[in-house]
Amino acid sequence: MSKLANFHKVKNRCTKILAIGRNYVAHIKELNNAVPSQPVIFMKPPSSIISSGQSIVMPYQCRNLHHEVELAVVISKHAPMNTVTEKNWQEYIGGYCVALDMTARDIQDDLKNKALPWTLAKAFDTGCPLGPLVDAANVDVNKCRLKLTVTNAATKQSEVRQDGTCDLMIFKIPQLISFVNKYFSLNECDIILTGTLYSYIFCFRR
Amino acid sequence: MSKLANFHKVKNRCTKILAIGRNYVAHIKELNNAVPSQPVIFMKPPSSIISSGQSIVMPYQCRNLHHEVELAVVISKHAPMNTVTEKNWQEYIGGYCVALDMTARDIQDDLKNKALPWTLAKAFDTGCPLGPLVDAANVDVNKCRLKLTVTNAATKQSEVRQDGTCDLMIFKIPQLISFVNKYFSLNECDIILTGTLYSYIFCFRR
Ligand SMILES: [Mg+2]
Ligand SMILES: [Mg+2]
Ligand SMILES: [Mg+2]
Repeated sequence: MSKLANFHKVKNRCTKILAIGRNYVAHIKELNNAVPSQPVIFMKPPSSIISSGQSIVMPYQCRNLHHEVELAVVISKHAPMNTVTEKNWQEYIGGYCVALDMTARDIQDDLKNKALPWTLAKAFDTGCPLGPLVDAANVDVNKCRLKLTVTNAATKQSEVRQDGTCDLMIFKIPQLISFVNKYFSLNECDIILTGTLYSYIFCFRR
Repeated sequence: MSKLANFHKVKNRCTKILAIGRNYVAHIKELNNAVPSQPVIFMKPPSSIISSGQSIVMPYQCRNLHHEVELAVVISKHAPMNTVTEKNWQEYIGGYCVALDMTARDIQDDLKNKALPWTLAKAFDTGCPLGPLVDAANVDVNKCRLKLTVTNAATKQSEVRQDGTCDLMIFKIPQLISFVNKYFSLNECDIILTGTLYSYIFCFRR
């Protein structure tokens, strides 16, 4: 199947994106957060997915939009609640891709101050750009390196904004997938975002 | 179409459930919350949907599960972002049903104390029981009354737990649907939960 066909299949069949917050120590320190005792989970809907080449829309009321580059896990088959374990988890992995967990940081800060859900800051349309799907057999997560470079369209100048390795995740993929499966059945093409390295600089402001 | 066929269509086609928090003054006072200046939005995935007759599962780590009876709006057709207004909103309403926004209150309280997302408290499997779909033409929302009665299976004793009218919503359906559409495109069978009256008493404890 072509990469584009793969993308359309994922976008059309996906029923939820479960995202992990605070899964790298550097990103936790940067935002002055506490190291969590279990995974922090939030959600994006399939309508947030776009492919590379599509435009990210600045969300309503947002003036400070951050990119968070993350490794995304694509689920291969239906898993009823409490079926995925730290031993059998690989049966449920269809592939990996690079994702951006786009975050309206100003909206998120406001919601956090009010102890409100993060949905408006995270789940908006175009908030989950996905790169091409890579077969699980070709990926060794502990050797993955994620690097995000932003190029200014006008000046053509490029800047590396995020660069790091996935072996530094606090909760590893077997733990993450078995933990979320205690609350959620998983479906083919559901996605797990595994958290960002650090972000340190703004993506877009207005 | 039979009611069951309708239910299966909604469950299978739904891509997201957008839920409104704190939309009735009585429920806000009961939980000591502030009256919001704009709708509070959180999300449940399609995997949380069950039909009447199916069992609600006590979520992992939850000891205090609340029912919140709510009017659910089922979307009739695709709406790109920023297309639904307070004038044309009725075109996008396929029908209404009664829903339960099942809430792991202890988990939610813990997440709120840490300013974390509500996902684990709200989005778990079986967390969104739906009643039969009623055609929009047969519903006058301002005359809807929601009543929740719990019957103890052992003693056969019944108790009214929630009872009130939908005309007391703070943000009405035209405002809610046009607001969420500023962030989210909507799809046929997507669902909006419009908030609960009050809850005052526990549903299940263990
Ligand atoms: Mg949330
Ligand atoms: Mg992230
Ligand atoms: Mg509710």
